[in-house]
Amino acid sequence: MKPAPRLYVNEPLVMDGQIALSGEASHYVMKVMRRRVGDDLRLFNGQDGEWRAQITEAGKKLATLIVGTQTRAFARVPDLWLLFAPVKKSRTEFIVEKATELGTAVLHPVITSRTTARALRDERMQMICREAAEQTERLDLPQILPPQPLQEALQNREADRPLIFCDEAGDNQEKPWGGTKGRARPMLEALREIGPGTQKGAVLIGPEGGFSPEERAMLRAQSCVYPVTLGPRILRSDTAVLAALSLWQSVCGDWQQQQ
Amino acid sequence: MKPAPRLYVNEPLVMDGQIALSGEASHYVMKVMRRRVGDDLRLFNGQDGEWRAQITEAGKKLATLIVGTQTRAFARVPDLWLLFAPVKKSRTEFIVEKATELGTAVLHPVITSRTTARALRDERMQMICREAAEQTERLDLPQILPPQPLQEALQNREADRPLIFCDEAGDNQEKPWGGTKGRARPMLEALREIGPGTQKGAVLIGPEGGFSPEERAMLRAQSCVYPVTLGPRILRSDTAVLAALSLWQSVCGDWQQQQ
Repeated sequence: MKPAPRLYVNEPLVMDGQIALSGEASHYVMKVMRRRVGDDLRLFNGQDGEWRAQITEAGKKLATLIVGTQTRAFARVPDLWLLFAPVKKSRTEFIVEKATELGTAVLHPVITSRTTARALRDERMQMICREAAEQTERLDLPQILPPQPLQEALQNREADRPLIFCDEAGDNQEKPWGGTKGRARPMLEALREIGPGTQKGAVLIGPEGGFSPEERAMLRAQSCVYPVTLGPRILRSDTAVLAALSLWQSVCGDWQQQQ
Repeated sequence: MKPAPRLYVNEPLVMDGQIALSGEASHYVMKVMRRRVGDDLRLFNGQDGEWRAQITEAGKKLATLIVGTQTRAFARVPDLWLLFAPVKKSRTEFIVEKATELGTAVLHPVITSRTTARALRDERMQMICREAAEQTERLDLPQILPPQPLQEALQNREADRPLIFCDEAGDNQEKPWGGTKGRARPMLEALREIGPGTQKGAVLIGPEGGFSPEERAMLRAQSCVYPVTLGPRILRSDTAVLAALSLWQSVCGDWQQQQ
């Protein structure tokens, strides 16, 4: 049997609470998901866990629900931050969706010297995060920080949050890491040094053109920064994001546990 | 300085060879990349390595090139196969693009009992692979096998190619791996058992609805099959592909080497 569909709502969830769905959410539930009065949904709001709810009324523009029992206690994803340079719109949307699925706690757009794209509108990012969280059985939503220049983001960073710096697409693309030989190592090796005991982490991915020599020097001069490579091929930014987050979750995050 | 753009051509590459670009490739080089007579490109054909070439003539519908020196000797990606159930068109295109970037040798669409989407046209898959290979500095192209029912693909498989079977989205989505407790383990753990010394591997990803109980039993009954999980959240098929290929390359593939 298919489990009841999940829906994010922006309201407190308590037993016997009444929820009125907005026109848009109501349309989605009644028309897209084709639910009827009496059907069950699962609701979450990013802080109260997951609750079963039943559709009690379904008007043309408004559906109402009554909240039943809690199905899962609230839990957060691991404390993993993603710092990423905005790229082409569709690829940035993809980064936001996939980072949510992969259990990222904080999304932070950073503007580097070679960043040519604009950050997505905040509302758009929020919507993508909500939909991905619905799909992926997450109970919390990622926090979205406002875009910030890379230098500022580095000045304000917590000194003890290990930052994995993916040095893809260096200045010499034919020998991408030729200029920093021996100074960037396989990401898995760096993660093993950081260790599974770490409580927090961050991954930084640059724009398609990579980081400038000044940025790379600035990053390498910081403590608790780990320059890494993701293999001998050049990955696009969105691919590098997914690869790096997957590796982090596998070694330092919650993918290690037996399910 | 930006390196010369890379272009796939379907012709032998030898020093002083002349290459006539097709109308489409010619348009791409002259109009999209805005190159002129005298400019350099880098060419590869999936078997002769990478060669520098110079534009010698640029008509409206035809550009010609002369091949110079070889810039990189031919090399293949690791012998990694991806078996994947076709999903929604845009997500399947994405799987093909990303698997190429992540260094997959063979792409094999497999039809499972819950597969609802059709496989992409072969030409379309080839085009996506070529473009991704151009971007990613790959020298070979993935081989694309014709779609095949899962059962047949398993009957014909090489017995000694370790198959990582990603058991995402099981039958009980609320406790996704509840029914197979202790029988699927974190992918990183399975890869460590397989070890970095392995010469070949395969990853199998199902459709959005997961595998049927019969398929899961059939897979588990085969030797050299490793049922694994990718963490406590439900990943979409395309996300699972990327995560699994990244982990394989990191432990068993060519991401371990210092660049």
